[in-house]
Amino acid sequence: MSEQRLQQQIQFILEIDQLKQVFRQTLIADGSRRENDAEHSWHLSVMAALLVEYGPAGVDLSRVIKMLLIHDVVEIDAGDTYCYDATAALTQKAREIAAADRIFALLPADQAGEFRGIWEEFEERATPEARFAAALDRLQPVLLNYHTQGRSWREHNISRSQVIERNSHIGAGAPRLWEYVVRIIDEATAKGWLRNI
Amino acid sequence: MSEQRLQQQIQFILEIDQLKQVFRQTLIADGSRRENDAEHSWHLSVMAALLVEYGPAGVDLSRVIKMLLIHDVVEIDAGDTYCYDATAALTQKAREIAAADRIFALLPADQAGEFRGIWEEFEERATPEARFAAALDRLQPVLLNYHTQGRSWREHNISRSQVIERNSHIGAGAPRLWEYVVRIIDEATAKGWLRNI
Repeated sequence: MSEQRLQQQIQFILEIDQLKQVFRQTLIADGSRRENDAEHSWHLSVMAALLVEYGPAGVDLSRVIKMLLIHDVVEIDAGDTYCYDATAALTQKAREIAAADRIFALLPADQAGEFRGIWEEFEERATPEARFAAALDRLQPVLLNYHTQGRSWREHNISRSQVIERNSHIGAGAPRLWEYVVRIIDEATAKGWLRNI
Repeated sequence: MSEQRLQQQIQFILEIDQLKQVFRQTLIADGSRRENDAEHSWHLSVMAALLVEYGPAGVDLSRVIKMLLIHDVVEIDAGDTYCYDATAALTQKAREIAAADRIFALLPADQAGEFRGIWEEFEERATPEARFAAALDRLQPVLLNYHTQGRSWREHNISRSQVIERNSHIGAGAPRLWEYVVRIIDEATAKGWLRNI
């Protein structure tokens, strides 16, 4: 293994450190501040290991976790796009592809290809692994929103139907978890944290 | 799968959210603030996926990543023990075992046993997976210290020999990475970021 190869790997490792400064709309569970992408990616990866029994039969957990670990690295360049921001969503795909082109290319060619492929698989949600990973990526902010009295939902004046629509694909990756999420959403609506439309 | 089981899993997921507020001595790469345990655990897990070729032959990457994802959860109760703080180190083990007793017990019994076992394996460094995980856990702060002009080392008046002694077990888990780390430590010493003794 060449010196240059290790240097490229270390360069990528230092580059993605920036994910620790990309902040999301979701608050951490104690409500004290917003969550960043590095923390979010860690939390999802632990959740995958714990909740794999609710995913598709035979799902490759190792691949799911790799996906979750790197699914947000494109946000170093593209920024976090709030999932209820329809205007930002229009340009999101192009911004994220440009970011993937730059960031994964820091790696040695074989690993650039592997990680780019894993990221694209996540984005396309065409495999059981990607659908399960995407389900966790939606479940986690719902949990945090609920346990911070819906503050982020209230700040953005979000409605029950928006949350249902945005998160319903949890059902494709983890049906049992979707049942649980619908119950949380209904409780949040009853408490007035989501507009009841 | 029972309702109670899922509730226990969700409870654990919310409990470990607190790792986002356990801060380490190491700074993030841009030097703007200290790193927390959740970010650190994420960073190590990505590093494991990228650097597995430098680990022991046939190492089980999936197990290494599980270890890295949860290796610091005991610090929710026990706090981060700075690796050059000899006084705190005296009580560290007892504090961490008490934390493990409480935190892993939040999970359903089968998962409590699995995750407790993975944590103990990491602590004991007796398997190739644990030695590789422990090597990464030491490599990452050295990288961040070096790329922040040794600020954390300088603040604590750390010497080259302390860093060598503290990190030499990297050689047991990843010999090629240990060569690289020694070179970084020598460069840091030459720059005056570590006391040259």
